[in-house]
Amino acid sequence: MSDKVLKLGIPKGSLQKATFNLFEKAGFSISGYERSYFPKIDDPEIELILLRAQEMSRYVEDGVIDAGFTGYDWIMENGSDVHEICELRYSKATSRPTRWVLAVPEEGDIDKPEDLQGGIIATELVSATKKYFADKNIDVKVEFSWGATEVKARLVNAIVELTETGGSLRANNLKIIDTLLTSTTRFICNNQAWQDDFKKHKIENISILLNAAIDAKTKVGLKMNAAKSDLDNLLEILPSEKSPTVSTLADEQYVAIETIVDVKVERDLVPQLKRAGASDIFTYPLNKVIH
Amino acid sequence: MSDKVLKLGIPKGSLQKATFNLFEKAGFSISGYERSYFPKIDDPEIELILLRAQEMSRYVEDGVIDAGFTGYDWIMENGSDVHEICELRYSKATSRPTRWVLAVPEEGDIDKPEDLQGGIIATELVSATKKYFADKNIDVKVEFSWGATEVKARLVNAIVELTETGGSLRANNLKIIDTLLTSTTRFICNNQAWQDDFKKHKIENISILLNAAIDAKTKVGLKMNAAKSDLDNLLEILPSEKSPTVSTLADEQYVAIETIVDVKVERDLVPQLKRAGASDIFTYPLNKVIH
Amino acid sequence: MSDKVLKLGIPKGSLQKATFNLFEKAGFSISGYERSYFPKIDDPEIELILLRAQEMSRYVEDGVIDAGFTGYDWIMENGSDVHEICELRYSKATSRPTRWVLAVPEEGDIDKPEDLQGGIIATELVSATKKYFADKNIDVKVEFSWGATEVKARLVNAIVELTETGGSLRANNLKIIDTLLTSTTRFICNNQAWQDDFKKHKIENISILLNAAIDAKTKVGLKMNAAKSDLDNLLEILPSEKSPTVSTLADEQYVAIETIVDVKVERDLVPQLKRAGASDIFTYPLNKVIH
Amino acid sequence: MSDKVLKLGIPKGSLQKATFNLFEKAGFSISGYERSYFPKIDDPEIELILLRAQEMSRYVEDGVIDAGFTGYDWIMENGSDVHEICELRYSKATSRPTRWVLAVPEEGDIDKPEDLQGGIIATELVSATKKYFADKNIDVKVEFSWGATEVKARLVNAIVELTETGGSLRANNLKIIDTLLTSTTRFICNNQAWQDDFKKHKIENISILLNAAIDAKTKVGLKMNAAKSDLDNLLEILPSEKSPTVSTLADEQYVAIETIVDVKVERDLVPQLKRAGASDIFTYPLNKVIH
Amino acid sequence: MSDKVLKLGIPKGSLQKATFNLFEKAGFSISGYERSYFPKIDDPEIELILLRAQEMSRYVEDGVIDAGFTGYDWIMENGSDVHEICELRYSKATSRPTRWVLAVPEEGDIDKPEDLQGGIIATELVSATKKYFADKNIDVKVEFSWGATEVKARLVNAIVELTETGGSLRANNLKIIDTLLTSTTRFICNNQAWQDDFKKHKIENISILLNAAIDAKTKVGLKMNAAKSDLDNLLEILPSEKSPTVSTLADEQYVAIETIVDVKVERDLVPQLKRAGASDIFTYPLNKVIH
Amino acid sequence: MSDKVLKLGIPKGSLQKATFNLFEKAGFSISGYERSYFPKIDDPEIELILLRAQEMSRYVEDGVIDAGFTGYDWIMENGSDVHEICELRYSKATSRPTRWVLAVPEEGDIDKPEDLQGGIIATELVSATKKYFADKNIDVKVEFSWGATEVKARLVNAIVELTETGGSLRANNLKIIDTLLTSTTRFICNNQAWQDDFKKHKIENISILLNAAIDAKTKVGLKMNAAKSDLDNLLEILPSEKSPTVSTLADEQYVAIETIVDVKVERDLVPQLKRAGASDIFTYPLNKVIH
Repeated sequence: MSDKVLKLGIPKGSLQKATFNLFEKAGFSISGYERSYFPKIDDPEIELILLRAQEMSRYVEDGVIDAGFTGYDWIMENGSDVHEICELRYSKATSRPTRWVLAVPEEGDIDKPEDLQGGIIATELVSATKKYFADKNIDVKVEFSWGATEVKARLVNAIVELTETGGSLRANNLKIIDTLLTSTTRFICNNQAWQDDFKKHKIENISILLNAAIDAKTKVGLKMNAAKSDLDNLLEILPSEKSPTVSTLADEQYVAIETIVDVKVERDLVPQLKRAGASDIFTYPLNKVIH
Repeated sequence: MSDKVLKLGIPKGSLQKATFNLFEKAGFSISGYERSYFPKIDDPEIELILLRAQEMSRYVEDGVIDAGFTGYDWIMENGSDVHEICELRYSKATSRPTRWVLAVPEEGDIDKPEDLQGGIIATELVSATKKYFADKNIDVKVEFSWGATEVKARLVNAIVELTETGGSLRANNLKIIDTLLTSTTRFICNNQAWQDDFKKHKIENISILLNAAIDAKTKVGLKMNAAKSDLDNLLEILPSEKSPTVSTLADEQYVAIETIVDVKVERDLVPQLKRAGASDIFTYPLNKVIH
Repeated sequence: MSDKVLKLGIPKGSLQKATFNLFEKAGFSISGYERSYFPKIDDPEIELILLRAQEMSRYVEDGVIDAGFTGYDWIMENGSDVHEICELRYSKATSRPTRWVLAVPEEGDIDKPEDLQGGIIATELVSATKKYFADKNIDVKVEFSWGATEVKARLVNAIVELTETGGSLRANNLKIIDTLLTSTTRFICNNQAWQDDFKKHKIENISILLNAAIDAKTKVGLKMNAAKSDLDNLLEILPSEKSPTVSTLADEQYVAIETIVDVKVERDLVPQLKRAGASDIFTYPLNKVIH
Repeated sequence: MSDKVLKLGIPKGSLQKATFNLFEKAGFSISGYERSYFPKIDDPEIELILLRAQEMSRYVEDGVIDAGFTGYDWIMENGSDVHEICELRYSKATSRPTRWVLAVPEEGDIDKPEDLQGGIIATELVSATKKYFADKNIDVKVEFSWGATEVKARLVNAIVELTETGGSLRANNLKIIDTLLTSTTRFICNNQAWQDDFKKHKIENISILLNAAIDAKTKVGLKMNAAKSDLDNLLEILPSEKSPTVSTLADEQYVAIETIVDVKVERDLVPQLKRAGASDIFTYPLNKVIH
Repeated sequence: MSDKVLKLGIPKGSLQKATFNLFEKAGFSISGYERSYFPKIDDPEIELILLRAQEMSRYVEDGVIDAGFTGYDWIMENGSDVHEICELRYSKATSRPTRWVLAVPEEGDIDKPEDLQGGIIATELVSATKKYFADKNIDVKVEFSWGATEVKARLVNAIVELTETGGSLRANNLKIIDTLLTSTTRFICNNQAWQDDFKKHKIENISILLNAAIDAKTKVGLKMNAAKSDLDNLLEILPSEKSPTVSTLADEQYVAIETIVDVKVERDLVPQLKRAGASDIFTYPLNKVIH
Repeated sequence: MSDKVLKLGIPKGSLQKATFNLFEKAGFSISGYERSYFPKIDDPEIELILLRAQEMSRYVEDGVIDAGFTGYDWIMENGSDVHEICELRYSKATSRPTRWVLAVPEEGDIDKPEDLQGGIIATELVSATKKYFADKNIDVKVEFSWGATEVKARLVNAIVELTETGGSLRANNLKIIDTLLTSTTRFICNNQAWQDDFKKHKIENISILLNAAIDAKTKVGLKMNAAKSDLDNLLEILPSEKSPTVSTLADEQYVAIETIVDVKVERDLVPQLKRAGASDIFTYPLNKVIH
């Protein structure tokens, strides 16, 4: 493997599109992912490989790839000894962690893990589940499930399954009796890569650019015109953390004020600014924000 | 109903996607509309409900919801006593009003409403159609049509149908002999909501933000560099209504000029500016514009 | 044909969507291309026609249309005498030329063009292929192929086929033994149009606006705050070609610096700026860039 | 309207495909229904028109069409004075009647129609609902609902809605507190058509052929060989209602027995016949069965 | 090429599915046609190749394949010297020949071929079109058109285009001024194949089986029971061409009558038979019919 | 679990549709399989469950279900102790066994299993693969692969993957160096079910009906008319195993001959019968055949 190329694993499936979108926003151009497992990226120092999130940490640890994106759950399940660079919340506004929960039929008489003594548990997350029950000294048989795990809650005694909102479990009339693990997406690399100057620098750059793109989604540029006499009032209304740019208009009695604000406060801020004398207020989208 | 929640009706169907896009541009985040009649919005003071445009004004008037979006046609048809906040033209560039027209087969001998004396009229807009003929003292039977109304123009004597361009009528070889009603989308609320301070304020804020998002589609930010000596010339070419921002470059013989212009004039303006000495001209998209 | 209308051919098929997107970014609004070969454009001085790239140059040369977009390959194949206004690289980042190559089965014993003496060649590009072999004094029969040409490499002796990455050829177990032609998209007009003042002016305007939209994809606006004392250092890091705008913040010890930079250097530039003292760095997208 | 053409209305929507399939099985060939409201049929004495089930009986009664297929519910709702030729159970095996039920939220305190006194009821079936409450002397306001009626059960006080299995109501957490109407598909014509010899004969023919096609789905042809000595035993096992055909084989010690049996009993009959000495048992599909 | 294998070309595109369905009905099982140009067939003496109808006769003539299915039009256009085995009307009920017609804009002043003297004709069928005009001593330039030919009728002077119903021409406001060629599907082979005993025999077998499958679509088996005393009456009603089978029922006073009838007369025949005393009438589908 | 219900597992995925079609042909009506893992069947003594083929035998062995359909490969992989009722070849004509093969990159220097000593093998079939290498005394690491296994042949040293035709392997430029296992579909039950009278009887009935439906696909009914004088000749041509039915026609010089023949011989038989004097030959489809 060349010293000057970083082999990077992208999770195939539900996170794939979001990950590629993030790379695009971060300034990379990726192509060919619909038909190849080796998408092209316009940076000769990076090679991409699509892999399932479940197996990512294993390939990172083995050195087959240098770094990759996967869930905390599968790093734990695989027991992989890898270096975690950062957590990635794809969208600050809507992301929420996923949970692996222990679920049983609503109508049954099982209410706590201990009631499962001697039972069978179906799950995709076998090791973590075994460890969970061993830690509690509950004797169960844990079986690997090939998908459609909810359905099996009525064939065996309980399941350990992934859920975000609990909707799919409720739809199958299952109730959650415990949470084993909470998971978010992580950017990981192996220890050799982290000790290689080129690779560490490359990995850190990618981390900075991806996080800058994530932050940009939560901010907008804000600009307005105002009479010089209203400037102080307006500066007081604007969030105090940043000092805005103030420029003169061609008509020198007026100034333009520009800053970036959180998309969350924009909705309330804009009407206040208008009432305080601002005119020609407008907002514009951002690509990247680095504090 | 809590005093601190505004119940807002969104029209299901052809306007639904455009309405949600507008809310997104206005800074709201909406989810769940594919599978629920009660989509979620990231503002705890608003609750959304999907309803057909046809029945919207009735539910607003009854107080089942506080406010909603619907067509002027259905407000008239239902005879609803509601308060109109504003007209919403989703896209200033391409929106055009819809019309309810009286149409008959091209090949027939009916040329004016009076020729329909004693006939049968099929329409979805029964009350407005009855009123139209009553005002003219023409005696007809008006029957409710469950869709595919164009087809019925040959089964009964005439139809009253919605049209935007007339294309579907022509494709069915129908001719228009009169227009009953012209309609655009309206933002309406009931009179109690309009007298409730919280609700009125909330409704006005939504109205401002939606209209700001609509206006942003028709504007772009425009920026260019120029020698100080060319500044006056360039200011004359720029639309006179707004005073642009003028800033100094690092190289102080030059200035940067910035303003927002109508997307319609941009195509012609940019070459003129270039000829008048501007360099490094660029334009950028806007999210929201409030005059 | 009116002197005041430019008839413009758009290539139907793989380039169609990219061409329309470019026109949209250039400030034109186009509609109706899904159902008509004559899409509408919001400029009364332009009429659009959808044509296959293969036949475009012929219709331009004949004067059926004034100008159009097509590949260099088909201009050559048709031997058309037309004026080339510019080459259009739809995306500076990812566009690559297409190649017409001579390909044979991997498992056969043909390794060079000369081995095809007396053989049959299937291709969509008959004239250029005939010329290629005639120039080499190799006697072959060239037959027109109606698509699925790869499949025919085993029915006849060789094929001449279009390829971008060679992937489809490899999937059919074919090997490339020579390249006949390399091609990119061209904006062409006929000689009469180029001598007509109105048409030449219109064609040049379109060329400027399309190229401005292409260039905008490769640039971003960049803005940052800095202490006045760091200004000189930062100006040195920024690309020297342009002088950036420098404005004072409300807190007058600080300045805002703004410029546009190439999207390619942004990835490396941003971390350097940060290290040199810049804060609140952000980038924003552009619509159009004219140098 | 020609005396020698029968105008026949086909219900657009959920029954449309089943109705066309039935006509195909009955020996008619129909085309063009995807793009026209006037599908073609290969019988010059029939003209087809697609209409909504809701308005079918009105157009039949008015004489706009001679006959049509619609539900008993909409004949009642429209109060149409029409002649019913037969009930059509599209599939004897799986068809079940639909019901219009009065439904309210599960969690509410409404348990019987009387609890709705003074309330609002949303429904597509306005007249029948008004009559139902009037008959019970319960004073309610009945409002026409444009679809998604289940959702409205929480906006107003109750709904009257169509259900087959109750599944959609349960999914919306609604409970049924009464049934207003049970409905199946009917073949209807107007009284003039029934007194016209040509039309009555044509209508009866269609009725016979459609019912023969429905019956054929529930029957199969059954054939087997047997030694002459086993014939009596086998005849006893076969359903007694029909006398089967008995033919001699080329080897005259054996006979072939043939009959038609109900598809429901076939599964149990075949093993019995085998045990009673039949060999070479086979079954074959039927197109049409007329007793 | 082995003497014991027949290489058979199947037309890719609009006829492909109909051709495969016909082979299935004829008793062959074909697979793999969605992903391969060499579908598998369960007859080791046949090899299938998918080819465009336009090039089929050329490959047959060259001996690349032994036989194939294509249109009469393309045999003529290619001037191929091939042996025609039979015409194939895929469905006796609905097939109709396609026509190549000379079409011009409705609104123009061209009314007959002679008006095109000196003009340009666009078509996919170049040779046949040249020959047509040469035979009439009309001097025109004929240009090959890459599809969407209707659109070109306004770019050049006329087109020669394929039509079945004329619908697409009318939709483009074109009028037909002459018909050049009428075409149906043909089963063809080359002369060497026709002189090879094995291949000729194989080709004839395929022809018999395909035509038997086509004929089966127009017939049904018909069976009924009757009292012996009604037999003569019933035999008179049945189509006289064939003598039906008459068998005795277990109850010997009754007979079963069986025959095959045309699907077209079945609709009228069945009610007559019932009135004449037949009972337990049923019909069943056929796979293949050989007279 | 009730004694009077048989719990039957249906394989989800590629065999699911074929299995349901077979049940339909066998006379059962199944519904709801698109949205539920527990489809309904119109036999109160059977309950259906959809399960992945990979886990079926485990659930059968455990007694979670009584019986099910799965591949021989997964019975072996799971090492399940179950009773095999029969092999099911869904279609006698086209079914072929699937193979698990050891595959490596074409371009590498691995040519036999022994070359993999010390290597890593990726596969979905871990146990069988381990056993295969252990039997050969080759030391390898076998890793479970989550799909897209072909892609991994270049990440690790070899793969063991399922193939029917080898097409997907070739497309990935892999070569097969050994076959581990050949597999077909089996109908299995557990030993307890096989000792329960009710369940054994039910399982056997299902087996008979499914096999009768499979056999019906390979047979057709054949009927022809002939002069009595040709009868003996024709009987000699017909397959000798069965004695055909011979009936007299209304015209008593003629007889009708009827039998069932193998669809495979029909193609050759029909022309021979014609030459031997048979007329009005036809064939018809069968639903079920039991010898």
